[in-house]
Amino acid sequence: MAPPPSTVVSPVVVLMVRLLTFICLLISMIILTTNTENVALQFGEVKIRFNDVYAYRYMLATIVIGFAYTLLQTAFTIFQVSTGNRLAGGCLYQFDFYGDKVISYMLATGSAAGFGATIDLRSGLLGFGSFFNKANAAASILLIGFFFSAVSSVFSALALPKRG
Amino acid sequence: MAPPPSTVVSPVVVLMVRLLTFICLLISMIILTTNTENVALQFGEVKIRFNDVYAYRYMLATIVIGFAYTLLQTAFTIFQVSTGNRLAGGCLYQFDFYGDKVISYMLATGSAAGFGATIDLRSGLLGFGSFFNKANAAASILLIGFFFSAVSSVFSALALPKRG
Repeated sequence: MAPPPSTVVSPVVVLMVRLLTFICLLISMIILTTNTENVALQFGEVKIRFNDVYAYRYMLATIVIGFAYTLLQTAFTIFQVSTGNRLAGGCLYQFDFYGDKVISYMLATGSAAGFGATIDLRSGLLGFGSFFNKANAAASILLIGFFFSAVSSVFSALALPKRG
Repeated sequence: MAPPPSTVVSPVVVLMVRLLTFICLLISMIILTTNTENVALQFGEVKIRFNDVYAYRYMLATIVIGFAYTLLQTAFTIFQVSTGNRLAGGCLYQFDFYGDKVISYMLATGSAAGFGATIDLRSGLLGFGSFFNKANAAASILLIGFFFSAVSSVFSALALPKRG
């Protein structure tokens, strides 16, 4: 069996994907945390905020952790693009590989928990349509952010130093 | 920078992890699909089934796809353990790598969507506690299945043929 051709990805492409992840997480975080709605009911006004729904709290937690990690990785990659050297040498490849894997799984679960809560709560709480639509938008953008982080995870697996 | 030592995992360990994934998915599927509850309300009896909740339908879809994939991979791995040869040579390494990645992401989202729906619906539908507890059990076992599939995904990334 012939080994496949070398598949090391250009650091500029890596940086682009990290930046796209970063932007998606930022937009998702802003939409989610500013999402409040006042609904007038018979007995008075009810205010609903994102942290009234447990799934959205979990979603925010995954966004914040993913945001911090992506910021760190973006800084590392900018350093690599500008100097041509990989900071801290080979051990960072392992950190990238496991870090990207864990963070991309986390973002996937954050987005899925958001969707899972939204779709079934919305049908029960029809008056809060706009609130759940915004939450859906945040979960969708988080899903896009997850796709980019999954691409980063593939890149970091392909970039693992050759073994054997 | 010195390359890390060879990290190819024994096929027996790979097979064990696949079998554990398989068992978790099977148990989760059985708990989820047999989950029905009849609740007596003032105006009559209400029957709730897992497919009344959209998030649980998605969860079942991820379990079924993950189940079929794991069955296939288990068969391949048994072939490999018993004959010592890898079926179809090198292209299967790529299939393992991307397949395990996609399936493990899918299982993670299935479990998270189940949890996301359960935690917030349960607080609104107090009479259906037993139904949501069983759904939670299914989501928990699916989560364990996801962990095993994530381990498979790490193994298949480490087993990618060395690149030049």
